[in-house]
Amino acid sequence: MSDFTKTKSLFHLPEGMIYLDGNSLGPLPKAACDHVSDMMRDEWGKLLITGWNKAGWMQMSTDVGDRIARLIGAEPGHVITGDTLSIKVYQALASALELNPTRKVVLSDNGNFPSDLYMAQGLLKSLGPDYELRVVNPEDVAENLTADVAVMMLTEVDYRTGRLHDMKSLTALAHEKGVITVWDLAHTAGATQVDLAGSDADFAVGCTYKYLNGGPGAPAFIYVSPKHVAQVRPALSGWLGHEAPFAFDLDYRPGTGIERMRVGTPPVIALKALETALDIWDMVEMADVRAKSIELCDLFISEVEARCPTLTLASPRDGQKRGSQVSFHFADGFAAMQALIARGVIGDFRAPDIMRFGFTPLYIDNSDVMAAVAIVEDVITNNLWDRPEYKIMGKVT
Amino acid sequence: MSDFTKTKSLFHLPEGMIYLDGNSLGPLPKAACDHVSDMMRDEWGKLLITGWNKAGWMQMSTDVGDRIARLIGAEPGHVITGDTLSIKVYQALASALELNPTRKVVLSDNGNFPSDLYMAQGLLKSLGPDYELRVVNPEDVAENLTADVAVMMLTEVDYRTGRLHDMKSLTALAHEKGVITVWDLAHTAGATQVDLAGSDADFAVGCTYKYLNGGPGAPAFIYVSPKHVAQVRPALSGWLGHEAPFAFDLDYRPGTGIERMRVGTPPVIALKALETALDIWDMVEMADVRAKSIELCDLFISEVEARCPTLTLASPRDGQKRGSQVSFHFADGFAAMQALIARGVIGDFRAPDIMRFGFTPLYIDNSDVMAAVAIVEDVITNNLWDRPEYKIMGKVT
Repeated sequence: MSDFTKTKSLFHLPEGMIYLDGNSLGPLPKAACDHVSDMMRDEWGKLLITGWNKAGWMQMSTDVGDRIARLIGAEPGHVITGDTLSIKVYQALASALELNPTRKVVLSDNGNFPSDLYMAQGLLKSLGPDYELRVVNPEDVAENLTADVAVMMLTEVDYRTGRLHDMKSLTALAHEKGVITVWDLAHTAGATQVDLAGSDADFAVGCTYKYLNGGPGAPAFIYVSPKHVAQVRPALSGWLGHEAPFAFDLDYRPGTGIERMRVGTPPVIALKALETALDIWDMVEMADVRAKSIELCDLFISEVEARCPTLTLASPRDGQKRGSQVSFHFADGFAAMQALIARGVIGDFRAPDIMRFGFTPLYIDNSDVMAAVAIVEDVITNNLWDRPEYKIMGKVT
Repeated sequence: MSDFTKTKSLFHLPEGMIYLDGNSLGPLPKAACDHVSDMMRDEWGKLLITGWNKAGWMQMSTDVGDRIARLIGAEPGHVITGDTLSIKVYQALASALELNPTRKVVLSDNGNFPSDLYMAQGLLKSLGPDYELRVVNPEDVAENLTADVAVMMLTEVDYRTGRLHDMKSLTALAHEKGVITVWDLAHTAGATQVDLAGSDADFAVGCTYKYLNGGPGAPAFIYVSPKHVAQVRPALSGWLGHEAPFAFDLDYRPGTGIERMRVGTPPVIALKALETALDIWDMVEMADVRAKSIELCDLFISEVEARCPTLTLASPRDGQKRGSQVSFHFADGFAAMQALIARGVIGDFRAPDIMRFGFTPLYIDNSDVMAAVAIVEDVITNNLWDRPEYKIMGKVT
């Protein structure tokens, strides 16, 4: 059984702040500063270039990937870290399209995070006018898996509402229709119980600065199914994805496995910060995290609905169909969120009217939820967002 | 006048080591550990998500880019940091090709770093069979600027020999022939006096972990000429290159200037480490660095040639035609470099027979050169690489 009292004690949580924005940027693991500065002093400082071998820097991309693999239900040896999520989306989509060369359509939905759509637009424009990005409503994805669709590219959780796609059934349906799948786990890695292997997903990508608590701009990751990894061509074919980087051949030959999805030099310092966060993740089981997350979200929903009738739930009520966040519609949501932030309840706002709160069992417990609810009630029922002191203090990010 | 005694005092240089591998990985600036851990504690730890605005994280890609711009002769506001060099090569090449749409050949040379060639191969394969990567000998580039060449993609310094291309004359010739230029400054940024604006270069890319001392896996940078930046389409069109990232539009619209070449979330922790290194760079002028570098290299060449006649100079003898490294051919170079490393002289080896030594005025001075020469002489003239103690201790990276 995961001990969330223990995990909470390992994060730095500012006094007087209830941090419900771990879905944007996770908090600092207390050990991270020392872990990173020790590495800088003892490895970079003393080993210098020999750190690539002696300190294992060269293996970090895969070592860290293996630790993430456990959290997302991936087979060991099939996740590698590096780059940003946007780059990994591009990389996965480029490879996925080549596995389905007679089809030219990428299907996505308008609940996908815009950057994924932008990266697809950029790639498809490069590939030529035959290619098309088709964006439908989230609930219409299944019926749009038509015979011209090469790749279904979805983010599992809608960043606005927390609505969760059913990865397993949509993947099965996609495969039935001859469609390759690319799943973005930005809001599910560390948030829900992802089962990549069990879902037979083809590709998955994600970031580590949200629920995984890797720090601002922490590296991304990519998963390629064992059934594809030896076939995929990396469009971003960098030397550290080469079969023999230090042979310095003039021609690219992909590495044997997931290593081929590595591109340039691994971001060692950032990976060290992420390692500290993964030391905490190593203490818990995702089944426990998921159960606790649903409990926290359900509690928040029922209390806010009981006390603040002017807020309308924007998230699915059924915890199984929801990520680890709760969103409410509220016409004055932007101003109200400013006031909440000024009072120490850190959520965020997404246009046009969504107040968003993330729940993260590693460091948020029931008493935090109840304390947040009391402040939400005060702000909303007393129209506190009209008070100048909250407008001045609050700053929405 | 740049004070290199001062700059040397600001780096951590291990006792008993003469570090001549700054062309692979620069050493640790002493202030970097505290600068990074302070940022982690005070910004990530205390500001959390609000750090993007309150701590200026969102501006770091361009702020740091501007500081690099001065070192490479670029116009302010035209350099942005992020990603890895391999990704930036891809990004520059993809944009460059679209500026010259009727031509399909990318010209490079076999002295280019292999990763650049690999990235080009990956991109051109995606673009289709009309595209071709044409790789010639470095000395044959000019005569191969034929009417079918769209882009000339070169690394200014040959990573093996240190041979320096003439950026200004090759760029002028390329333009005369209707060819767009992409320059990789991996071995020149912080090493030679690059003049991007004066050379009328179209695109340039580089890394910051070599001469710039940003740390293992530090972020890369990209430069786009003012004459192109408003026209280029970013193939890697991520949300932080969008004109209005937080509008969360479904369609990509490029940012107005160099911001469009930003892709995903900036690597804040890594950028903080790089900032510390740039604090040192702020103290010097590149003209002084270049003059001192040539002096150090010339001294090393003349002393080694006088004492070790079995080593043959692989680098240009003329300092103006050489980067900030010196390479020698030596049949037993691999073993000899192991022995040198065991004795504290850190250079590196590149197949088949090149012993490579980098000279970095920020922290290497004449006395270091003379101390290194004495050890090289001892190892080479006494065949010390055959001694088992050196084989055991030495480890080539």
